[in-house]
Amino acid sequence: MSTAPAPSASPIDPIALDLAGDPAELTAALVDIPSVSGSEVVIADAVEAALRRLPHLRVQRVGQSVLARTDLGRPSRILLAGHLDTVPIADNVPARRDGDVVHGCGTTDMKSGDAMLLHLAATLPEPARDLTFVFYECEEVDYDRNGLTRIQADHAEWLAADLAILGEPTNGNVEAGCQGTVSAAVTARGRRAHSARSWLGDNAIHRARVILERLAGWDARIVDIDGCEYREGLNAVGISGGVAGNVIPDECTVRVNFRFAPDRSADQAVAVVRDLFADFDVSVLDVAAGALPGLHAPAAAEFVVAAGGRAQAKYGWTDVARFAALGVPAVNFGPGDPSLAHTREEHVSMTQIRDMTAVLRRYLAG
Amino acid sequence: MSTAPAPSASPIDPIALDLAGDPAELTAALVDIPSVSGSEVVIADAVEAALRRLPHLRVQRVGQSVLARTDLGRPSRILLAGHLDTVPIADNVPARRDGDVVHGCGTTDMKSGDAMLLHLAATLPEPARDLTFVFYECEEVDYDRNGLTRIQADHAEWLAADLAILGEPTNGNVEAGCQGTVSAAVTARGRRAHSARSWLGDNAIHRARVILERLAGWDARIVDIDGCEYREGLNAVGISGGVAGNVIPDECTVRVNFRFAPDRSADQAVAVVRDLFADFDVSVLDVAAGALPGLHAPAAAEFVVAAGGRAQAKYGWTDVARFAALGVPAVNFGPGDPSLAHTREEHVSMTQIRDMTAVLRRYLAG
Repeated sequence: MSTAPAPSASPIDPIALDLAGDPAELTAALVDIPSVSGSEVVIADAVEAALRRLPHLRVQRVGQSVLARTDLGRPSRILLAGHLDTVPIADNVPARRDGDVVHGCGTTDMKSGDAMLLHLAATLPEPARDLTFVFYECEEVDYDRNGLTRIQADHAEWLAADLAILGEPTNGNVEAGCQGTVSAAVTARGRRAHSARSWLGDNAIHRARVILERLAGWDARIVDIDGCEYREGLNAVGISGGVAGNVIPDECTVRVNFRFAPDRSADQAVAVVRDLFADFDVSVLDVAAGALPGLHAPAAAEFVVAAGGRAQAKYGWTDVARFAALGVPAVNFGPGDPSLAHTREEHVSMTQIRDMTAVLRRYLAG
Repeated sequence: MSTAPAPSASPIDPIALDLAGDPAELTAALVDIPSVSGSEVVIADAVEAALRRLPHLRVQRVGQSVLARTDLGRPSRILLAGHLDTVPIADNVPARRDGDVVHGCGTTDMKSGDAMLLHLAATLPEPARDLTFVFYECEEVDYDRNGLTRIQADHAEWLAADLAILGEPTNGNVEAGCQGTVSAAVTARGRRAHSARSWLGDNAIHRARVILERLAGWDARIVDIDGCEYREGLNAVGISGGVAGNVIPDECTVRVNFRFAPDRSADQAVAVVRDLFADFDVSVLDVAAGALPGLHAPAAAEFVVAAGGRAQAKYGWTDVARFAALGVPAVNFGPGDPSLAHTREEHVSMTQIRDMTAVLRRYLAG
């Protein structure tokens, strides 16, 4: 059973994708379909058309996101998700092969992960666990535009699962949970004066040294949760102050970023920042909760074993946190070095794409 | 003897100024001729026409500056200077009288000083000391446009004197010499990293705390020169750093301003900054030498006595430093509170204008 094509589908024939072939070649084919955030219609049409040819999947289009699922009555369900969008192209499309390596926009983040998941969608008609695939739009931009936000609001039933696996780049590892993040502006105040009579003023930039001393001296926790080590960090990521070259400044603002382990709630993390700078003005700019790794859940524990027995902490913030908030244990597992994400030099090993696809196949085929 | 009018003079009749009347009323008349830097032609024409009517003065026009002098063969010569330009008008022209106070653009800086000097030019045909008057353009803008720069280059003989008295606002006091100033950028460097993995980077903003600690802990000298107390100051006047909200920054720059006593040369002052921050990158942005008060020179010492016996240090930088560099002792002596300069609220006491004019008259009449 499949629903009618969405009215937003392109009127021309979708690009044909060979899902059942080599997932490394499929990665290159996906890179060759430009899909910067907000311009995913062509790639979504291609993915939708390819998935609709598979009789074991039920497919639904939501905007430029594509959902597909098995309904085999298995005792557990695994959700496999990848975003279809990329950051802006930097003269790195089409894909370029060099020996075992594919270079190009999205090779790491995350068309190699998409290729791995699409290949498994096509080649596992009888998995041991029921599968839900989510290929979504606009992950690289605002939370409100993220395809998962719309799916969660209008089609929440599609996100129910015992474990979510996101194909974000982990370089072969299982990365579980994620840190949270707080951004805040901490402001020191003083009193203006002409710099020729500086003793009549009170230099706010000089006062800001106290903020920097506390940051530099802050004792960063290292926390073990479910065998994953989370290392916190509290840093100045920006500073500004000054009125003119001959004026003692009356204000200096330090922008602080706190990356916190997921054993703290977002509120607790904000309190850490507020308490540390209780004698300054603190304005919280942005907060995102972390995600506990949740590896004690049976489906998650089994996946870690299948993937080699070790999981590690994810340091960036990913949609794993969204699933954790929904009560679904979630991990990242995808090809490519995460430190290459968003760089012009993005590339991925074709061998790693094939090897990780094989690992995930063993787990899902069970 | 007088030279022919300069070709740049306005073709219409100049505004008539009554130099011999009340210098306080003359202040208001000068305020009513707008003369923002670069637009001094009308006021220069009026000043030139009024001075040319005085047979005891030789007059020369240089651009929008007006020079005048006695040549009586006296044993000493006093140069009296005032700039004709103002900062931009801030809804404070024409002048407004309120009891003893005149409000308006330039009342403090420095049309009251100009009025004092113009009144003395007109009413001291037989001074005990030869007099040189310099009413000049563009003091409030770049050094290169300052009328004194052109006079110094093309008519240096006009600047020779035993003492220069600038009518810049001193609120009734004699202010001698001036501080020098050094502006420099002091940069801390580090290594970028994602803020989620901050331990892989080296936070340049955190490092900049060392710069701020040294500034905050700096022991400011207080120096007595010729009975004037100069108080130094070394301050951060600006700070900037940061790449993005999720990046450990690799650079943080503190803009430092050093106001130094005139017993240090400009080179020595630069060395103080370079030595204090020897372990950082230091880039000198701007240097202006100070000016020693020079009050041991006979003409200067006599003026201090005539003005009440006390001189104090000037904290801002003024053209006094230019005369000091030429070997001419120089002081500031003019009506108005210097802290009102460049404010919308500029105003001056009419009594103070008359009293200071009388003090200066006694000294020049000798």
